Amino acid sequence: MPQKKRLNVGLIGYGFMGKVHSNAYLQAPRFFDLPYQPVLKAVCARTPEKAKEFAANWGYESVESDWRALVRRADIDLIDIASPNDTHAEIAIAAAQAGKMVCCEKPLARSAAEARPMVEAVEKAGVANMVWYNYRRVPAVALLKKLLDEGRFGRIFHYRSQFLQDWTISQDLPQGGQALWRLDAAVAGSGVTGDLLAHNIDMALYLNGPITEVTAMTETFIKERKHNLTGKVAPVTIDDASAFLCRFENGSLAMFEATRYARGHKALFTLEINGERSSATWDLHDMHRLGYFDHRDPGEVRGWRSIHVSDGDQPYMGHWWVPGLQIGYEATFIHQLADFLIAAGGGKSIGPTFRDGLATDYVTDAVLKSARSRQWEKVEGQ
Amino acid sequence: MPQKKRLNVGLIGYGFMGKVHSNAYLQAPRFFDLPYQPVLKAVCARTPEKAKEFAANWGYESVESDWRALVRRADIDLIDIASPNDTHAEIAIAAAQAGKMVCCEKPLARSAAEARPMVEAVEKAGVANMVWYNYRRVPAVALLKKLLDEGRFGRIFHYRSQFLQDWTISQDLPQGGQALWRLDAAVAGSGVTGDLLAHNIDMALYLNGPITEVTAMTETFIKERKHNLTGKVAPVTIDDASAFLCRFENGSLAMFEATRYARGHKALFTLEINGERSSATWDLHDMHRLGYFDHRDPGEVRGWRSIHVSDGDQPYMGHWWVPGLQIGYEATFIHQLADFLIAAGGGKSIGPTFRDGLATDYVTDAVLKSARSRQWEKVEGQ
Amino acid sequence: MPQKKRLNVGLIGYGFMGKVHSNAYLQAPRFFDLPYQPVLKAVCARTPEKAKEFAANWGYESVESDWRALVRRADIDLIDIASPNDTHAEIAIAAAQAGKMVCCEKPLARSAAEARPMVEAVEKAGVANMVWYNYRRVPAVALLKKLLDEGRFGRIFHYRSQFLQDWTISQDLPQGGQALWRLDAAVAGSGVTGDLLAHNIDMALYLNGPITEVTAMTETFIKERKHNLTGKVAPVTIDDASAFLCRFENGSLAMFEATRYARGHKALFTLEINGERSSATWDLHDMHRLGYFDHRDPGEVRGWRSIHVSDGDQPYMGHWWVPGLQIGYEATFIHQLADFLIAAGGGKSIGPTFRDGLATDYVTDAVLKSARSRQWEKVEGQ
Amino acid sequence: MPQKKRLNVGLIGYGFMGKVHSNAYLQAPRFFDLPYQPVLKAVCARTPEKAKEFAANWGYESVESDWRALVRRADIDLIDIASPNDTHAEIAIAAAQAGKMVCCEKPLARSAAEARPMVEAVEKAGVANMVWYNYRRVPAVALLKKLLDEGRFGRIFHYRSQFLQDWTISQDLPQGGQALWRLDAAVAGSGVTGDLLAHNIDMALYLNGPITEVTAMTETFIKERKHNLTGKVAPVTIDDASAFLCRFENGSLAMFEATRYARGHKALFTLEINGERSSATWDLHDMHRLGYFDHRDPGEVRGWRSIHVSDGDQPYMGHWWVPGLQIGYEATFIHQLADFLIAAGGGKSIGPTFRDGLATDYVTDAVLKSARSRQWEKVEGQ
Repeated sequence: MPQKKRLNVGLIGYGFMGKVHSNAYLQAPRFFDLPYQPVLKAVCARTPEKAKEFAANWGYESVESDWRALVRRADIDLIDIASPNDTHAEIAIAAAQAGKMVCCEKPLARSAAEARPMVEAVEKAGVANMVWYNYRRVPAVALLKKLLDEGRFGRIFHYRSQFLQDWTISQDLPQGGQALWRLDAAVAGSGVTGDLLAHNIDMALYLNGPITEVTAMTETFIKERKHNLTGKVAPVTIDDASAFLCRFENGSLAMFEATRYARGHKALFTLEINGERSSATWDLHDMHRLGYFDHRDPGEVRGWRSIHVSDGDQPYMGHWWVPGLQIGYEATFIHQLADFLIAAGGGKSIGPTFRDGLATDYVTDAVLKSARSRQWEKVEGQ
Repeated sequence: MPQKKRLNVGLIGYGFMGKVHSNAYLQAPRFFDLPYQPVLKAVCARTPEKAKEFAANWGYESVESDWRALVRRADIDLIDIASPNDTHAEIAIAAAQAGKMVCCEKPLARSAAEARPMVEAVEKAGVANMVWYNYRRVPAVALLKKLLDEGRFGRIFHYRSQFLQDWTISQDLPQGGQALWRLDAAVAGSGVTGDLLAHNIDMALYLNGPITEVTAMTETFIKERKHNLTGKVAPVTIDDASAFLCRFENGSLAMFEATRYARGHKALFTLEINGERSSATWDLHDMHRLGYFDHRDPGEVRGWRSIHVSDGDQPYMGHWWVPGLQIGYEATFIHQLADFLIAAGGGKSIGPTFRDGLATDYVTDAVLKSARSRQWEKVEGQ
Repeated sequence: MPQKKRLNVGLIGYGFMGKVHSNAYLQAPRFFDLPYQPVLKAVCARTPEKAKEFAANWGYESVESDWRALVRRADIDLIDIASPNDTHAEIAIAAAQAGKMVCCEKPLARSAAEARPMVEAVEKAGVANMVWYNYRRVPAVALLKKLLDEGRFGRIFHYRSQFLQDWTISQDLPQGGQALWRLDAAVAGSGVTGDLLAHNIDMALYLNGPITEVTAMTETFIKERKHNLTGKVAPVTIDDASAFLCRFENGSLAMFEATRYARGHKALFTLEINGERSSATWDLHDMHRLGYFDHRDPGEVRGWRSIHVSDGDQPYMGHWWVPGLQIGYEATFIHQLADFLIAAGGGKSIGPTFRDGLATDYVTDAVLKSARSRQWEKVEGQ
Repeated sequence: MPQKKRLNVGLIGYGFMGKVHSNAYLQAPRFFDLPYQPVLKAVCARTPEKAKEFAANWGYESVESDWRALVRRADIDLIDIASPNDTHAEIAIAAAQAGKMVCCEKPLARSAAEARPMVEAVEKAGVANMVWYNYRRVPAVALLKKLLDEGRFGRIFHYRSQFLQDWTISQDLPQGGQALWRLDAAVAGSGVTGDLLAHNIDMALYLNGPITEVTAMTETFIKERKHNLTGKVAPVTIDDASAFLCRFENGSLAMFEATRYARGHKALFTLEINGERSSATWDLHDMHRLGYFDHRDPGEVRGWRSIHVSDGDQPYMGHWWVPGLQIGYEATFIHQLADFLIAAGGGKSIGPTFRDGLATDYVTDAVLKSARSRQWEKVEGQ
């Protein structure tokens, strides 16, 4: 085997996403043939003990407490941003200016206005960049994309997508601080719109093309919660639920919805697409299955197929086990990283790039604007 | 057994709905203990041969070709309107004025303006009346209603409902005439909004209470079709797809959608309701099953239950077979008729009454209005 | 319409099966074009009040309390036997000798020895005959039969079938008498072997051909129950559970099982068949769906199809509603009666005939024999 | 963090199982708090190039081509046997005699006679030992075990388990050699009985206790295949399909089946257990779901629950992601290794030990014997 080029990774953030990304750097080279060998060089976090513990568990060689120091390090090739949303822009721009590859958690930023300079920075610097919209790399979703690209669906009439959770229903749950910054709009930008709908939208843009206009509604079911930083009850600033109708450039109609108040659903990310000839469904709770209907099947045996996407001739699965055996959530990050490194090895970026992340932010901006204006709103930047 | 009172039925229309209603009059007394014995006295249709054939098959004693003649007959106790939507108002009002019980196919009329005098007529006449929104009487739906009424769900956050079909996708399908009047807005009032969404809305008002405001979009995917009455290609006047976001009086958010362009779905009427403690799902393609989630189950064994609604202690099922055995679509009409006749025997009307039918028309009016105005529209008449 | 020939029906038994058969005589001519118009001429039962009540509900013109008197009546064309198993042979033979058509509930008799003279009697008399193995006429099953006959499956490797119930688990349930004769071997012949497995076997013989040999086990989980006729606790004489392995003449291997001790299953009759190219599954709890897998589909979109058998081009469904709408359990009897009358109108019998019923009895005999002998046993009469 | 004790691993075999085991040694310490830090010290394989390539990918420090040399190495603490079945006994015994911990792929050996000395060896040496029956550590299965241990099911009546595959249907598939030794009885011991049924049996013994007697049938559908080692067509020596009925010591009845000729199923390992109060189902194609029915639920809302086993309070899942997100097949090996190392750290072995592996071999022996004798056969060694 030829010696692989070492790629020194500097990770910022050590929460849930830090864990998932670290796992991807370790696992990707064992299952995929990559032009780079990622090396876990440094992890950066404000609390040194936490960072050290994280580094020990995952094998990071060093620890930083100031992201600026990390970005300045000459021995770092790639900056991975897994810290809260309000930190993405500043870090990403600095990293790009320092000539690092940049991988950023989603959403790219709290708004399109904040995201736009990030895109400019990475494009000006010419550094490989991506946003961790990992669900594009679920094998069943990748298969669906392939089927769409083959023209099996014909004209598209409808698209639907939901992200349903139920973990914030209790009034007793506080908001804010390290554990719950997703419930604080100042840090997160918005509630479920940026946290969950952003996934639905990225996937939709990927599969069905640009969205032109939206009409939306949002709701905050629980109006006040104790804030973790102050210890005091304060108004809740995020949207607990967000839904919108929209039209795509290809003429199809769509409905999107995300909520953390759908009792019984843990992380039910769903999608359905209806075309002239074929339709498909997918959801995250059984993420290895693709629902597929083909009207060209003979009438009497026509039906929805449940495709167990685990065969070697299905996307990514030849790298894993044997037919019938599932892979986990973490594999979607491994796939994305593998695709990214292969593209980067050839001097290219692969979607979702920062520019793709910005496209999603334009849609979430339009959704939030429409919820306020109670009007149809055009999606900008298309 | 005591002698039952004979109830002479006059049916107007002999299409699909005429068949289903006739079956209900014959079957209801065999499975339910009713205060009346329905007698198929007369069927009315414009084409005498068709009416005679229909009468022979179902056992109607006589045939009429003019509905006015039928309504005038002293030996008719109940007028059942199963003719196209543009005929409902005139017939229903005349029947009420003649003192007959009136059962009318849904939607009650082409608009709330047309429906309002119908409500006034039956209420003024004091005649028993109902609209054939049959799906309330699916046993699984009736069970859901009972669970909601018992307070098992707590505060309601979300409601969703779809009616997905795929039978008009072909450009070759003509519009209008006897077979396809549902594709002609002059006769039907609207497209999927009145034909399909009306079912979703009636069910939602029944289960979740009044809707206050909506924002909607509609689309006509195929703009021109041959018209059966003229033989010429003419603009399509109906909505092929219709979707709306709305808010209910109880504070919950909802999404509704109906289309005849969802490839792979024949008659997929779905609903989901999410409450603080419980959630439920149901769909027409497996109409004997109720999905139910109860957060009060112990955490480690919490999951969605698939309730096979076929036991004697579940609604209506004690009248049928043994546990595990399904009933058909037609049973929903039998149940509705049985409930109606039992109520009528006690001098009462039972929902969905004409007034309930009007409430649905107010919502469909708001949906169509919003699709034109591109604004949120209040639902009138609440 | 031409005048149909009247066919006078005499029914023996008024229990669950009497109800289902009566419904079929009334409904079949409304949904199918038949050469006969069935007339509910007489119902026979030992208790006159029960018979009168049943006659009033279903519209029987007269009542008999002695089946011999019924069989002697010149105005009866068809004898329908819906009484307990121990009465089938004597009635059927007398009816055949009287030249009546004979429809008999399953199993044909308590043993093949008892059934053989019944077959001889109807064949000697040349009367149309059938056994009410109704599940062959589930549309999804009829579709499966058609697909098999078209050669879509290739060589068959495996067949599996279960009938799982849970209604006798309680120790408090008594045995015997009118309500629970199925728990009394003297009346029923056996327990689940004759009551449930007989359905599985008839279907298997129909779909997959003759069975050559079996090895079986049976169990009586609850050894003593109060007997309804004596009021005393007595040994339970039936098999509560019965399972067997077998080989078919076509070389395939199979497993069968029936039990009334499978908690959570009401009437879960299942089947699966695996062929070289295709496989299929079906179950009674969602009886309108056929699972179908076709290996000739392209690899990456290969999956199990869930076929919602409700379209006009699928077996029987053109006689009912519109695509997407289900039919009930009772429809299987209507279909069987319609097929029987159409065949009888042409002077023919159609399966399952008495001879087919005997074939099933040969298999259940072998199963019970093997459970005693603890040996593989050949199936006789093949 | 305290320094962990290093545990030097020597792996024998580099096929599919070598890959899965290696992954477990690398991943377990990142997700579980273990008393040992596994070190990938050496991999052993007959072909040095293959071994080097494997070592480079997984990070093994050294390579051996003779397992005896590996077993002799003082720097090896644990021998992991992932080579074909005919090598297990000799290696395991030598490893035990050398005082190493031993982890052996399943089945433990080609027969109980071959396995017995292995058990004696590890027990005499007092070394920690386990057999890689990984499916006990699927979180849904572990949850089921917990529910059973809590007494939720009451008396058990039935157990069923299948392992259905379809990858050997083609006549063109050869047998034997490195790639297909599972099709060669001399190497594998048997066909699906040892390869697949062994999984079903281990799980059943774990969940439902000892099996007392069996009656079985096996079949070889394709009688001759080209042999990879000779290049000549030769008789197929393995069983392609294997099925048996049995009784458990607890009085329950059971059916087991494994085949590689069930078209449409890739690796469909299923189980169902029916108790007096509760029932449960599980299958490998959706391995994160547990079906659970509890008769103590109120009648009208009783139904099968689909438990998405992905919450922190469900077995193992607190070590992974967040609720709603799946884990992969490989996680079952990680869990087993973690449990094994934790037990070994405390000086104990945890099931499935070699003794447990022997218990399964006794059952598979009885199955193969019964298939030949056509008799019920007692299970030895109980």
